[in-house]
Amino acid sequence: MNAIPSALLRETAELSGSVTRPIPGSRKVHVEGSRADLRVPMREIALADTPSMFGAEKNAPFTVYDTSGPYTDPAYRVDLAAGLPALRARWIAERGDSEPLADFSSPFTRRHANAPSLAEVRFPAIPKPRAAKSGMNVSQMHYARRGIVTPEMEFVAIRENQRIEAIREAHLLRQHAGQSFGASIQKLITPEFVREEVARGRAIIPNNINHPESEPMIIGRNFLVKINANIGNSAVTSSIAEEVEKMVWAIRWGADTVMDLSTGRHIHETREWILRNSPVPIGTVPIYQALEKVGGVAEDLTWELFRDTLVEQAEQGVDYFTIHAGVRLPFVPLTARRVTGIVSRGGSIMAKWCLAHHRESFLYERFEEICEIMKAYDVAFSLGDGLRPGSIADANDAAQFAELDTLGELTQAAWKHDVQVMIEGPGHVPMHLVKENMERQLEKCGEAPFYTLGPLTTDIAPGYDHITSAIGAAMIGWYGTAMLCYVTPKEHLGLPDKQDVRDGIITYKLAAHAADLAKGHPGAQARDNALSKARFEFRWDDQFNLGLDPEKAKEFHDETLPKEAHKSAHFCSMCGPKFCSMKITQDVRDYAKEHGVGDEQALAEGMAEKAAEFRAQGGEVYRPG
Amino acid sequence: MNAIPSALLRETAELSGSVTRPIPGSRKVHVEGSRADLRVPMREIALADTPSMFGAEKNAPFTVYDTSGPYTDPAYRVDLAAGLPALRARWIAERGDSEPLADFSSPFTRRHANAPSLAEVRFPAIPKPRAAKSGMNVSQMHYARRGIVTPEMEFVAIRENQRIEAIREAHLLRQHAGQSFGASIQKLITPEFVREEVARGRAIIPNNINHPESEPMIIGRNFLVKINANIGNSAVTSSIAEEVEKMVWAIRWGADTVMDLSTGRHIHETREWILRNSPVPIGTVPIYQALEKVGGVAEDLTWELFRDTLVEQAEQGVDYFTIHAGVRLPFVPLTARRVTGIVSRGGSIMAKWCLAHHRESFLYERFEEICEIMKAYDVAFSLGDGLRPGSIADANDAAQFAELDTLGELTQAAWKHDVQVMIEGPGHVPMHLVKENMERQLEKCGEAPFYTLGPLTTDIAPGYDHITSAIGAAMIGWYGTAMLCYVTPKEHLGLPDKQDVRDGIITYKLAAHAADLAKGHPGAQARDNALSKARFEFRWDDQFNLGLDPEKAKEFHDETLPKEAHKSAHFCSMCGPKFCSMKITQDVRDYAKEHGVGDEQALAEGMAEKAAEFRAQGGEVYRPG
Repeated sequence: MNAIPSALLRETAELSGSVTRPIPGSRKVHVEGSRADLRVPMREIALADTPSMFGAEKNAPFTVYDTSGPYTDPAYRVDLAAGLPALRARWIAERGDSEPLADFSSPFTRRHANAPSLAEVRFPAIPKPRAAKSGMNVSQMHYARRGIVTPEMEFVAIRENQRIEAIREAHLLRQHAGQSFGASIQKLITPEFVREEVARGRAIIPNNINHPESEPMIIGRNFLVKINANIGNSAVTSSIAEEVEKMVWAIRWGADTVMDLSTGRHIHETREWILRNSPVPIGTVPIYQALEKVGGVAEDLTWELFRDTLVEQAEQGVDYFTIHAGVRLPFVPLTARRVTGIVSRGGSIMAKWCLAHHRESFLYERFEEICEIMKAYDVAFSLGDGLRPGSIADANDAAQFAELDTLGELTQAAWKHDVQVMIEGPGHVPMHLVKENMERQLEKCGEAPFYTLGPLTTDIAPGYDHITSAIGAAMIGWYGTAMLCYVTPKEHLGLPDKQDVRDGIITYKLAAHAADLAKGHPGAQARDNALSKARFEFRWDDQFNLGLDPEKAKEFHDETLPKEAHKSAHFCSMCGPKFCSMKITQDVRDYAKEHGVGDEQALAEGMAEKAAEFRAQGGEVYRPG
Repeated sequence: MNAIPSALLRETAELSGSVTRPIPGSRKVHVEGSRADLRVPMREIALADTPSMFGAEKNAPFTVYDTSGPYTDPAYRVDLAAGLPALRARWIAERGDSEPLADFSSPFTRRHANAPSLAEVRFPAIPKPRAAKSGMNVSQMHYARRGIVTPEMEFVAIRENQRIEAIREAHLLRQHAGQSFGASIQKLITPEFVREEVARGRAIIPNNINHPESEPMIIGRNFLVKINANIGNSAVTSSIAEEVEKMVWAIRWGADTVMDLSTGRHIHETREWILRNSPVPIGTVPIYQALEKVGGVAEDLTWELFRDTLVEQAEQGVDYFTIHAGVRLPFVPLTARRVTGIVSRGGSIMAKWCLAHHRESFLYERFEEICEIMKAYDVAFSLGDGLRPGSIADANDAAQFAELDTLGELTQAAWKHDVQVMIEGPGHVPMHLVKENMERQLEKCGEAPFYTLGPLTTDIAPGYDHITSAIGAAMIGWYGTAMLCYVTPKEHLGLPDKQDVRDGIITYKLAAHAADLAKGHPGAQARDNALSKARFEFRWDDQFNLGLDPEKAKEFHDETLPKEAHKSAHFCSMCGPKFCSMKITQDVRDYAKEHGVGDEQALAEGMAEKAAEFRAQGGEVYRPG
């Protein structure tokens, strides 16, 4: 059983079947790299044969990128209390530049590790933390800049290719040339290319040495567009079990990273359970927990408390920190005339602190010291967009761009330490102002990866903001944004539930894929081609299983045409059998074939003679079954 | 009671409360024009006062465009069996260029009017049809080209302005300059401007003289982007009562026109009920009914049967016909190598006919005769995109563009008759190929309005195609498309139910509005501004009511924070009271105000002295209640 100790919770504790049931039509596969312990997970979708009326051919299984970790592998026995296998532990140890610590560095962590009142919520098998040896730097950027191709880089290269190098069928390989606005899209990703991109800061591989369970992934303009899903409790709702379940649920549907934005109870313990069980990178916003520690009084925050929080979280294994070091004292008044002021939680906390102390942000002033912490564990920066616009009216204003300029400055500072950096952005931006954001970010931030929330392209649809923002997200992904932070239907209204998380993720996966297509990412169109071919051939289950949400597609289809016989039906309830254009199209194609397929000239010439013949045959070419 | 005669149906007959309940916070208002019988419906949303902590001001009611007809007006007594008031009847009669006919012109109609077996399903009060007097032309384009500003044109001008000329508040009027790619966006719409646009064919006002119940609306690049929703039964599902209910439901949520795409039983009778009760233009695809009349055998279609179907439908009052006159014999082989062939029902029917007869399409060859029918009733052409791409692979191919070129040729032919024309398009198109579609259509079709399905920007998300297509629709609307045909979550999978119709419509409303914003349509941003201000001030009900779907927004909010007290809560369940950035922002703003609001320089200078003061006061400015 997938049990969290029952003492932990008041409600049902196990991972539910809904998050672990196998993905329909798929099986987990692994592609091996240059060493036996480097096995890259993917998902293989089995396809039925093309029916004889369409040409009777076999369809090879189709491989797709997979973020779901071992949870959807029926061969894997889930034990949340033990955590996932430490996949990268040997790679980390081999490098010889880090060491296990005798104890946790943070006093807060040590208190929590020993407090009897927390026994119920504590993860049972907390590993000893590691840190860089004195004077060493364990970031992937540091290795990359020294010409080293790490196992993580090789892993990522294999993962990004999605085995397209093995595709033979012409119909899958056809693809429109893209428009990537000057990106460096590769035909095939090599480990060396990964190293180059990480070395120049144009991509990051977020993986803390204390999160060895993570399956490496890359965030960068010249790679597949990624998405992030947010989980986390608030003072008003949710429990640890729910948060772990949400994480497993989120990666099932395709979240490439997950941010734990908890602001309620047991933030530290919740995060431990999530990290130990997460195959994807985990991000946090450390200022939230810091604020919790001072009872919610922003003015009482101090650098020392914040610093300790960074170390506490880094030693647990957080892979990236959102840090609002661009919310600077002189920028705060620039928000005075905004319609929606400062909508970022972290940004408004820091704004409040700056005003109260009449001092420059300690995040900005102490940035160098933060870098020293980051490099000791390989935590990446997600430089926060605390002054992002929260309404259409506020888009692209002076406050927003002043912060972006500072983030550019801080990017260079971080790179001096070989600390990995990505830049956060948008918010609410109308379509015609989206491109300017991308261009400015590329110019000011040295092409560090851009990681945007949406943007929402209008304010007028609360309840549908996953959609208002999918529009902006797809566009900004096309223009070069590397990762898109999802938005759920509950945006502006409340905390999302599981259904909302699913809706948000699928929405953002499709937006990211639309961007990959528009950029001309090699092999991106193969999945569209495979699905459309299945659709045309009435291979219904294949159409569902190739989609981003096979269960929903099947459920929707079955609402009006459920009988099993209809699964091979050459129509659906939309039009019924007489009107189905797919069926008629096939008749047209059969006719063309009988009279010289592919040769349009011969077809035109031959048609006069053949028309009478065709009618005499009865015209109808449909063969039941 | 809103009763369809009970003999008609096996299931519940009345319009349900769900389609007629008043829209929260709104009341129907009418703006009078130059004559007493010209009253333009709109909707006015009442807003609460801004709370004192934010400045204590009154917020004038906010006016929005309204397509819901009288159904949401509690003062109106719905009687589906009587139909709506014939709003335009006097305007039509006054023109003196049309006359009532002694009987219906179509033999099919006459048979149906008298058949005893259809008594149960027949609309009880079928009006006598009208037609142009001999030699006359009753199209709005004809009047426009003769310099006449009709009541319809004046109605439309008032409607498009949405009373923005009455807005005084600066915060509502602030708006980003748009990017309209050379459109002629006006500051305010005048009846004369409407006349000009209709005269040059750049806009259409679809309203058949036999549909006097319709509230005039305009479709054109220089007007608000419109959306269409599809209803209609198929052989496999749905009833007349359901279709009428779907129409009322669709317009409630914002459909500007509705297409009745029925292919099942009682197509004629269903359409009559819909037309007599629809305040929005109704479109059809006459070839569907024509095919039904020949038992589904495409080869048995004839021009004569089709012609009769056009007359039958025109005399009922259909406002626009989708006619696939661009699916020409030589183009059919161009689809042979497509992944998804011909996905348009109408297109594949005509393709089949052409091949079977080895003849050019009768729609193309008889186009002049079709124009003669259209001009006698003022039915507009929606020149069909029978060869639109049904998969990403097929986007922008030779078949698609060959048809578009022909539609351009046919546009000119129709305009010789002063027949109104719009052009159908896209389908499945990746983002980077969308613009080319718009540019080509503008060039080839003389700037006739473009009316696109989506486009879907990827194939891989069945179950979510309202979203894959919202991305393309918003973009192509921005580029100049005048009307967007909605897509529901059921696309490719089955017939949509009421929930799907709502999801599809709200999705397309937000996409159309995102396009209006990007184009810089005057006043478009006022609603975003009003909503965001309400959001910032925690006027929760106002935020919901200003949104496109007030009921859903409220429902989502109440899922996690339902208590009435929380309606004025200065937080929501997302972050809880301590972390709410809106609240913190207001604290920041209050501080700035105390120390010289709006004067950023003075603020900066004064801050040093004031900081100590602020802390001494306790820092917290929140006042409960």
